[in-house]
Amino acid sequence: MAQRILILGGGFAGMFAAREVKNRLGDAAEVELINDQNYFVFQPLLPEVAAGSITAPHAVSPLRFLLRDVFVRKARVDSVDFERKIVTVFQGVQRRPTEIAYDHLIVAMGQTVDLSRTPGLTDHALTMKTLEDARRLRAHVIEKLEHAEITHLPEVKKEALTFCVVGAGFSGVETVGEMKELIDRSLKYYPNIDPSEVRVVVVEFADRVLGELPPKLGAYAAKKLEERGIEVMLNTGVASATGTRLITTTGEEIPTRTIVATIGNAPSRVVRELDLEKAHGRILVERTLQAKGRGDVWSLGDCALIPMKEGATERGDFAPPTAQFAVREARTVAENIAAAIQGKPLKPFQYVSQGALASLGARRGVAQVWGINISGFAAWALWRAYYVSFLPGFGTKVRVLINWLLDDLSPRSVVQIRSYTPPAARYVHYRAGDRIFETGNRADGLYTVISGAVELSYQDEATGEEVVTRIGPGGHFGERLILGQQRRSGTVRALEDSKVLVLDREEFLKIADGFPVVRDYFKGHMKEAYGIDWSPEGDREG
Amino acid sequence: MAQRILILGGGFAGMFAAREVKNRLGDAAEVELINDQNYFVFQPLLPEVAAGSITAPHAVSPLRFLLRDVFVRKARVDSVDFERKIVTVFQGVQRRPTEIAYDHLIVAMGQTVDLSRTPGLTDHALTMKTLEDARRLRAHVIEKLEHAEITHLPEVKKEALTFCVVGAGFSGVETVGEMKELIDRSLKYYPNIDPSEVRVVVVEFADRVLGELPPKLGAYAAKKLEERGIEVMLNTGVASATGTRLITTTGEEIPTRTIVATIGNAPSRVVRELDLEKAHGRILVERTLQAKGRGDVWSLGDCALIPMKEGATERGDFAPPTAQFAVREARTVAENIAAAIQGKPLKPFQYVSQGALASLGARRGVAQVWGINISGFAAWALWRAYYVSFLPGFGTKVRVLINWLLDDLSPRSVVQIRSYTPPAARYVHYRAGDRIFETGNRADGLYTVISGAVELSYQDEATGEEVVTRIGPGGHFGERLILGQQRRSGTVRALEDSKVLVLDREEFLKIADGFPVVRDYFKGHMKEAYGIDWSPEGDREG
Repeated sequence: MAQRILILGGGFAGMFAAREVKNRLGDAAEVELINDQNYFVFQPLLPEVAAGSITAPHAVSPLRFLLRDVFVRKARVDSVDFERKIVTVFQGVQRRPTEIAYDHLIVAMGQTVDLSRTPGLTDHALTMKTLEDARRLRAHVIEKLEHAEITHLPEVKKEALTFCVVGAGFSGVETVGEMKELIDRSLKYYPNIDPSEVRVVVVEFADRVLGELPPKLGAYAAKKLEERGIEVMLNTGVASATGTRLITTTGEEIPTRTIVATIGNAPSRVVRELDLEKAHGRILVERTLQAKGRGDVWSLGDCALIPMKEGATERGDFAPPTAQFAVREARTVAENIAAAIQGKPLKPFQYVSQGALASLGARRGVAQVWGINISGFAAWALWRAYYVSFLPGFGTKVRVLINWLLDDLSPRSVVQIRSYTPPAARYVHYRAGDRIFETGNRADGLYTVISGAVELSYQDEATGEEVVTRIGPGGHFGERLILGQQRRSGTVRALEDSKVLVLDREEFLKIADGFPVVRDYFKGHMKEAYGIDWSPEGDREG
Repeated sequence: MAQRILILGGGFAGMFAAREVKNRLGDAAEVELINDQNYFVFQPLLPEVAAGSITAPHAVSPLRFLLRDVFVRKARVDSVDFERKIVTVFQGVQRRPTEIAYDHLIVAMGQTVDLSRTPGLTDHALTMKTLEDARRLRAHVIEKLEHAEITHLPEVKKEALTFCVVGAGFSGVETVGEMKELIDRSLKYYPNIDPSEVRVVVVEFADRVLGELPPKLGAYAAKKLEERGIEVMLNTGVASATGTRLITTTGEEIPTRTIVATIGNAPSRVVRELDLEKAHGRILVERTLQAKGRGDVWSLGDCALIPMKEGATERGDFAPPTAQFAVREARTVAENIAAAIQGKPLKPFQYVSQGALASLGARRGVAQVWGINISGFAAWALWRAYYVSFLPGFGTKVRVLINWLLDDLSPRSVVQIRSYTPPAARYVHYRAGDRIFETGNRADGLYTVISGAVELSYQDEATGEEVVTRIGPGGHFGERLILGQQRRSGTVRALEDSKVLVLDREEFLKIADGFPVVRDYFKGHMKEAYGIDWSPEGDREG
């Protein structure tokens, strides 16, 4: 009977593993791949999607198209039972669990982002991990240009025109380079913005950029970025972030409304909960790519820690988490699964990197190929050629090439297709002294204090006197919004570094609708504080 | 001094009005256009975007690109003060109001969608008004195919493969035609779906489709749709909707997870609140396009009710809300504003429609041009040629043509780029008898009952007996989720037609974080009901 090979994850590691296994085993294997998206993302192109030099559909391919004889299941993995050899998933909007049996399991679930160690970063930074992230970044940058173009407030303009990228590895360097190009090429549509008003910064904790490449190329990359007007801040980390500030570990305060974090790789929930031996959050595998102590569970790609030699301990002893390695690991997994089924000896994973490439935007790149350092236009062209050769499907290759060509020849569109709607309930961080809102502002939500303290001041309607109140954790302000108030009638400042929860009016009304304790509390509060009989039912629009 | 002409809205009416006014008045006018997006949407192409035959960027153009000498302000209009001649807007994420003065104001804000008159429709129907709507519909259809491909449950498969469009006007007919083509062309990637399992329905309250066209063409369109396997249900409205059912006014229950509403046009909030004379929610204008009683306020497009003759009363006496008319109205507005400034007499708006066109998908269309009825491929080709000629900018024309060509020659991609994330707090409607969840299901949220009643049954852990409880408005269920429960330990059914509020776990924890009354209530409830000391602080991941 055919062996059931189940692959979790559809990135470089999982997609190529599925393909290699099917190619090698043919009808001797039923191959199934489970992924939470129905497409494969060509991750290295994400910065170009963010910059609009290619459109999102050209950076992805449907898994069903790439894997014709593999059963593709779009589902979320819940858990794995290694004893019963069962993976439980949830598919569609269904809440009923579905169980899927395997003979061999390949875990290739990559990594996610966790920014929670830096205060404010989770709530105020954009990330660059998914296609949606890239599209959101593009919309965000254009939104800031639109705002800078029309605002009359110098400090707002300054914040809107300062763009920060955190981390100067491949992803950070390519993101900052492409973002700068997007801004430079868009400015002609924004006559009120002078190029000198734009500030683009990349912040890196290490003492150099592109730690993956030789120091010489890193230095070249930093120089090229600086020549293009990008500030490179080395030996600098992020201490905290708010909606308008990035505070560095060196104590500098950067006024900015754009923070892109390319740091913080962390294991996904599923990998974290797998009953397998792990190190640094990654699945520890044998050199054969088998999970420690399990002959039928394999792991590769970014979620696996793969020793490249016996007794590996140093960082350099393990396979780097790159697409290039993932593709080679996929081949080894396929060979070893075939060998295991046929009772033949397994081989250790071996691979020597052919080199590394990074695009810096504006037709410049850096590369090290077979030990040779290349930089400038040649490296950039090589980068493009390399990735086009990698693109799955002839149609995709042609379309990406056409798009790149069109991009070089025609002005870049500043269409901001996706307006990002912030969550209806969201945490916002403030530093001591920040103004949260002031009299006359649009009433944009009901605020509650999670930590820290704020000061509310307003004019008493009866006496005309200035009233000042301190509000601490558990307290709320801006609640006259729920009475239908359109504009603020008081000013609020943070007394300490504070975290608040902001609820849109509609969201608050839903909560009041669903939770009688909330309704009753605010009924009482409105009566007591404002002498008004309030009920959510009588308060809804329409 | 130059006159300040301010235009609210960047659709066909507003964009063309800005262009015509600037062309006519040149330096004699400062023209500013305010829109909440920075692009112009070519509305008639939205069904094609939903079907993936063109990509979203090709259906839009940046307003800044189309209107070179016009000041474009991306902002949300708050209100208009006709006495002070001031428009107040909010721009960017700013909450500070910005005031903008005008000499002449042109209101061209179109319409929005209001589905609230039909129970459940607001919470369970997709719409087709914006670019985001079109992209969401495409992702939704592919999601249903993905789910149908892998589910083992026949009733789920049936619901997933039934697609309903409500309304058979231009938008409804084009949407259902394009949606059917998307499904037909995608099925080859879904080997587990037999074409006979797909059901596509269009529901229309009137006794014919395409009421805007002569009966003969409407009949042809209906016949063509039916030949392609689309059910056309005439004389049928929607009585109510849930997440899995559409209930018609004729009493039929259609099991479906896809309802696209192309009905329910309604004025936007701003138009509703304008202190101008209105009828049927639209701004009543003179034949000169001046708002009644105001010489300096003009209105056109879908938000205006424009009489085409003196003493207009019948629907046919007013200008139809189409792009074709909006463009001509823009010309009249520009001429009349120029005349008003120069003290010359104004002209009434006059225009005789050149015809009407609709695409039915699959290279078929219907058209009436200069009184001649055309149908089939010729009408479809005419439709495409007409809209390409309309496209602003040569580059856009070429790109749309290339895309259409590529679409005809290559297989359609089934990439589901945008996964729609439902709101973290959402209303869900159930019919009496519906199962809400059952033992073993994934715990997906905390539920509270807004209206109706549900029945919870579970096995008592101590006695092993079946416990049955009725929960009415204000009650909640599924709250063991907040203890970290992953699977349901009880079954809930709707006893009556019910509306519930569902909160994701993270959302609930935010609310508990921000509202001490909620925290205290659930602390007490968890202690009492389950004997567990719960607090949100100790309960968070990470």
